[in-house]
Amino acid sequence: MDSQTKTENCLGWAATDPTGVLSPYKFSRRPLGSDDVSIKITHCGVCYADVIWSRNIHEIAGIVKEVGSNVQGIKVGDHVGVGTYVNSCRNCEYCNDGVEVQCVKGPVFTFNHIDVDGTVTKGGYSSHIVVHERYCFKIPNNYPLASAAPLLCAGITVYTPMMRYNMNQPGKSLGVIGLGGLGHMAVKFGKAFGLSVTVLSTSTSKKEEALSLLGADNFIVTSDQEQVKGLSKSLDFIIDTASGDHPFDPYLSLLKSAGVYALVGFPSEIKFSPASLNMGMKTFAGSVTGGTKMIQEMISFCAARKIYPQIEVIPIQYANEALERLVKKDVKYRFVIDIENTLK
Amino acid sequence: MDSQTKTENCLGWAATDPTGVLSPYKFSRRPLGSDDVSIKITHCGVCYADVIWSRNIHEIAGIVKEVGSNVQGIKVGDHVGVGTYVNSCRNCEYCNDGVEVQCVKGPVFTFNHIDVDGTVTKGGYSSHIVVHERYCFKIPNNYPLASAAPLLCAGITVYTPMMRYNMNQPGKSLGVIGLGGLGHMAVKFGKAFGLSVTVLSTSTSKKEEALSLLGADNFIVTSDQEQVKGLSKSLDFIIDTASGDHPFDPYLSLLKSAGVYALVGFPSEIKFSPASLNMGMKTFAGSVTGGTKMIQEMISFCAARKIYPQIEVIPIQYANEALERLVKKDVKYRFVIDIENTLK
Repeated sequence: MDSQTKTENCLGWAATDPTGVLSPYKFSRRPLGSDDVSIKITHCGVCYADVIWSRNIHEIAGIVKEVGSNVQGIKVGDHVGVGTYVNSCRNCEYCNDGVEVQCVKGPVFTFNHIDVDGTVTKGGYSSHIVVHERYCFKIPNNYPLASAAPLLCAGITVYTPMMRYNMNQPGKSLGVIGLGGLGHMAVKFGKAFGLSVTVLSTSTSKKEEALSLLGADNFIVTSDQEQVKGLSKSLDFIIDTASGDHPFDPYLSLLKSAGVYALVGFPSEIKFSPASLNMGMKTFAGSVTGGTKMIQEMISFCAARKIYPQIEVIPIQYANEALERLVKKDVKYRFVIDIENTLK
Repeated sequence: MDSQTKTENCLGWAATDPTGVLSPYKFSRRPLGSDDVSIKITHCGVCYADVIWSRNIHEIAGIVKEVGSNVQGIKVGDHVGVGTYVNSCRNCEYCNDGVEVQCVKGPVFTFNHIDVDGTVTKGGYSSHIVVHERYCFKIPNNYPLASAAPLLCAGITVYTPMMRYNMNQPGKSLGVIGLGGLGHMAVKFGKAFGLSVTVLSTSTSKKEEALSLLGADNFIVTSDQEQVKGLSKSLDFIIDTASGDHPFDPYLSLLKSAGVYALVGFPSEIKFSPASLNMGMKTFAGSVTGGTKMIQEMISFCAARKIYPQIEVIPIQYANEALERLVKKDVKYRFVIDIENTLK
């Protein structure tokens, strides 16, 4: 297969100049290797990281069209997902532990990174993708592919710290800062884990939905300092999904002693008083996405518990407008591109 | 006993004016209650918090002279220690869990706090102390009382996060920032736990002792940025005992993925980049002292493993000079006041 002529066998959308505006282009996917799976992409989620990092963090769902000779766990016709990375060294302590995102040589991200064979990864705004089977995750047939896509980035980004810091203890309390793609999944996981969930959001416009649709127990507008103070020392856990800058001391004060604050957003800096942390022996944890073991576990959990992201399905031609709306936080709660029916 | 006339039954040293200079004075200890233990203080450690907070964090060792009618676990003649708090509500989730330092009503600190009976606590620079038995810890007779005193604050302050974050895994690596009273105990615990210990210190003067006397495996002067960088991603754990301000990003970069940074010092603020934490799913943890269960466990561990703080025993008359030397970091590694023989 190495001798196969490289042709422009894949259609995609990408930014081809510094304006960041996405437009169609053609490129070549690598030929199927013996450990690879070739996937017809049906859906791809749109992540806020697309905006802030001017790069695409892709969350992909699709249907397997071809598998390499060594592939054991996946067969043609399977529904699968691909997350934010598509390769790693598979030989370091983290890879061996199923936490490939922490690979010592660095994971190969799904978009615009150099894969081990020297090719540049092209992401999920495209008609198909070729991925080593280790980085594909089986999606049960009864779980809609459109809903599955956001699990691969938004879902796993909040699920990982929730599991790592034992936030799945029924009866405990969780605060979720920010109610976007990540935050709304944190609410859903929190409720599935039996937690009492308080949403802390900048926008009152999401209050009704947070309570009725997402099932949150409590909703606080962060601009209302009195309401925020009323939560003092009441929360076991906080997940901070806010992308913008904000103070940390007021939120740390909402944690009980021994509470855990998990940050998954990327503000410009983190700054707080040592007393906010030390006096209550609190933990401030950072997290990005999860390893392959955790991703598969999360998908199975969502299927078993019927947990679905709230999505707005859009055609690829709407992608640029969707990014603009994302900047304005005008989405409930994740855009998912219908690649299958609109990328032509 | 409530009717007992309050006489000035106790001799102590304290700062009686804003200069902070310590001088002798007499005061009254409360009469022995049915759950109380009366302790003749033999030794009291001198903590850096005495300097930075203008208040005394006392670590006390002594011999039991009298016990109340309900006291079960402690008898006259026992060697005991008293830590930085002498009371708590004994009825909240933290007290019930043996983590009294996190008591929801707040623990009553050993010095200059109002106890539940309305009296003000007077600390350990004094001839005797009356304490509820729950806040006294048995010290084995073969463990020197002078050595025991620093365990009650310096020791437990580093032991607590080390246990809480599972730093007792042989073969893992620990960085200790700052080599004072707390830092040198972290080195000793680290070695007892089978860790590879790297000291990061501002002062080369402590290098030889750190390696030969304390048993550290490696010593880095923090002003040498090249040496610090050489440790990149090499440590499983860091305990930061530095009292002064310093940047955090360079030290966070020394942690491996999933590493834990435990802060026990009180710099003026904590500031770092989210990427320093998120990308390696690292944990930044705060801690102060520990609960009663942990304190007793630590004392037993030190006795069993023959772990002794390095101390400079001084007379009470030297206390003011000791505080000045403490400011200049001129102590290896903990001053302990010989109360028994010098406070008269």
